[in-house]
Amino acid sequence: MTQRIAVLGATGSIGDSTLAILATHLEDYEVYALSGHHRLDKLLALCQQFSPKRVCVPLESVDTFAKRLDAADLDIDVVGGDAGLIDIATDTQVDTVVAAIVGAAGLPSTLAAARAGKRILLANKEALVMAGQVMIEAVKTHKATLLPIDSEHNAIFQCLPSIIQQDNTQIHDRCHGVRKLWLTASGGPFLQQSFAQMQQAGVAEAVKHPNWSMGQKISVDSATMMNKGLELIEACHLFDLPEDKIKVVIHPQSIIHSMVEYSDGSFLAQLGSPDMKTPIAHALSYPQRINSGSQPLDLYALSGLEFIKPDLQKFACLRLAREAMKAGTQATIVLNAANEIAVAAFLAGKVRLTDIADINEQALTQVQVSTLTANADIDDILEIDKIARLYTDTIIAKMV
Amino acid sequence: MTQRIAVLGATGSIGDSTLAILATHLEDYEVYALSGHHRLDKLLALCQQFSPKRVCVPLESVDTFAKRLDAADLDIDVVGGDAGLIDIATDTQVDTVVAAIVGAAGLPSTLAAARAGKRILLANKEALVMAGQVMIEAVKTHKATLLPIDSEHNAIFQCLPSIIQQDNTQIHDRCHGVRKLWLTASGGPFLQQSFAQMQQAGVAEAVKHPNWSMGQKISVDSATMMNKGLELIEACHLFDLPEDKIKVVIHPQSIIHSMVEYSDGSFLAQLGSPDMKTPIAHALSYPQRINSGSQPLDLYALSGLEFIKPDLQKFACLRLAREAMKAGTQATIVLNAANEIAVAAFLAGKVRLTDIADINEQALTQVQVSTLTANADIDDILEIDKIARLYTDTIIAKMV
Repeated sequence: MTQRIAVLGATGSIGDSTLAILATHLEDYEVYALSGHHRLDKLLALCQQFSPKRVCVPLESVDTFAKRLDAADLDIDVVGGDAGLIDIATDTQVDTVVAAIVGAAGLPSTLAAARAGKRILLANKEALVMAGQVMIEAVKTHKATLLPIDSEHNAIFQCLPSIIQQDNTQIHDRCHGVRKLWLTASGGPFLQQSFAQMQQAGVAEAVKHPNWSMGQKISVDSATMMNKGLELIEACHLFDLPEDKIKVVIHPQSIIHSMVEYSDGSFLAQLGSPDMKTPIAHALSYPQRINSGSQPLDLYALSGLEFIKPDLQKFACLRLAREAMKAGTQATIVLNAANEIAVAAFLAGKVRLTDIADINEQALTQVQVSTLTANADIDDILEIDKIARLYTDTIIAKMV
Repeated sequence: MTQRIAVLGATGSIGDSTLAILATHLEDYEVYALSGHHRLDKLLALCQQFSPKRVCVPLESVDTFAKRLDAADLDIDVVGGDAGLIDIATDTQVDTVVAAIVGAAGLPSTLAAARAGKRILLANKEALVMAGQVMIEAVKTHKATLLPIDSEHNAIFQCLPSIIQQDNTQIHDRCHGVRKLWLTASGGPFLQQSFAQMQQAGVAEAVKHPNWSMGQKISVDSATMMNKGLELIEACHLFDLPEDKIKVVIHPQSIIHSMVEYSDGSFLAQLGSPDMKTPIAHALSYPQRINSGSQPLDLYALSGLEFIKPDLQKFACLRLAREAMKAGTQATIVLNAANEIAVAAFLAGKVRLTDIADINEQALTQVQVSTLTANADIDDILEIDKIARLYTDTIIAKMV
């Protein structure tokens, strides 16, 4: 049966990879809905290519976009803004929601998809970093399926026992022999440099990621290893494990995308080319497999795979992520918010790369927010996020 | 419920590892029966340690061994020879047979276990190299379970989709996305040496395996890479794939024990310390996991993992194994028999290490045997084996 897909965040890099796969499997998948934000020309081209039934654009662009679709002779329902995203994410015609909107903007629609019991291909980090408990609760209650598509979590998912894969990815620790999860990290562009060199690094050096081509924010997060810290928080929620069961190992070649360690001494690892099409194709077709169109890994060409323990003084953000996870959801919201503000300040030339960890640590220590209750919802979360952002602004103002 | 285990070949290295694991899990496993051949003192000590209900020794040793058990005040049923092994392997009280007898001697009892529908932990190579079709047919017909415990096949088993694991490990190619299997090989002690150097190598150099401690025959097979060739043949039968779907990659560090390549570009790999306790514990407890007592792999200490394409001129035995697999069961029986004779001749100082491949190739080309029918049984197989051994003797006689 054809699986009907809504791609939220269709014009970004995850959207690109997803649609490249779908384009070669249109007998099994229908591109039912798309959303875009900044790149509406590209969204229009995608509408022409895939003829979705529905499309979501920013609220202020609904009318003009509808006219452009008319002009192109395309009969597509246009909705707008957060309400439009939620409308699409919960559409009864939709089987699978690809949650690829970057940042907090993706939160409400991802949560709505969970509450509508959808199959969710999760690329949006914030859904778990900011709202992990709420999301997982919604997935369980509404029997949604959560399939991670960032390469590390997808790798771990692939290496877990099928009984855990099928049970909303929760690990029931005692029965299935999972001892630890191992997130691999490239170590970013400063792996071989000293803290002092890292302190002097400009934006151009910081965004130069060795293996993956990514946006600026995530490239800086990779340079500070905050990216791995956020992934650690995600993994705790996704796989229902405390942070001390999830280890980080630097593997500069990014061939092994993550691992699961079992009680019998086995490590299961997923390897592949650094191409997001592989984890996306895996999640689209799970528990089957489809051809992803990614360049096959040439095993014979591999050599010198290395594994290094991360230096938590140089990469203090990784330590902060563990501390935030131990402290609870409010702390992970604050850390995520502070980090976004600090990275923006670095990209704007206001602070040094190594200041990001200091700013994050100050925010974690100093931001006073109310404790989230079990009934917390998006609004409560966004309130903490807002307070943390404002406070982080004042921290930075004092520094510059 | 307690799983009742028969360990056939209890005094060898697989027996050691198996019993070391069982000794720490006696609440879940009962050592119901043991067999031994050469090391009867050791077998007696194991009887004292585990108090099995039954024990099998060589036919000529039944009486004396029974007396020694009496003297030790142990009430254990003693049986002897092939019939004894089969008796134990098919005992209705036995749930799991660990088939760890080396060589053709292990064939009848392993096949009997399959025909009795047992759960078989397979270490005996010959069961698949010599009698692959017969074995797999017996497993299917009698709903036995075949779990490989040599490290490569166990690694592949762990990396396969659960639906294939549960269906007697047969791959139904189109549905589950398995593209290729990758057997890893250490490359043996001559990986970095020339063919000329290999030609001059003495026994002491040839049996020096870099990563695993093994017997002499298998060490020589590792030096010529015939060991990997035999594993390739086993893998074809175990996983129901033609030889061209099974690749060999040299990985000198022996950390990755083998891999499965999927159509989406994922490679799943099993990694671990070079300790047989890990795959044995996996197979014992599958689909659960138990602690194997193996030394955990220290990921942070790993570095320089390499992957190299095998040189089929230097390691001609690997090419011969593929050719034999393509030619059919008779050819794999001949190759296995010729190789045993050739290795023995090398260990006796009669031929050079590099002559082994020549001898094997001559035997493959020249030995005329009748074609096995679909109803072939052990006797037909052993007949071909015998002819091949005799012919190989004449090949060697002409050389020395």
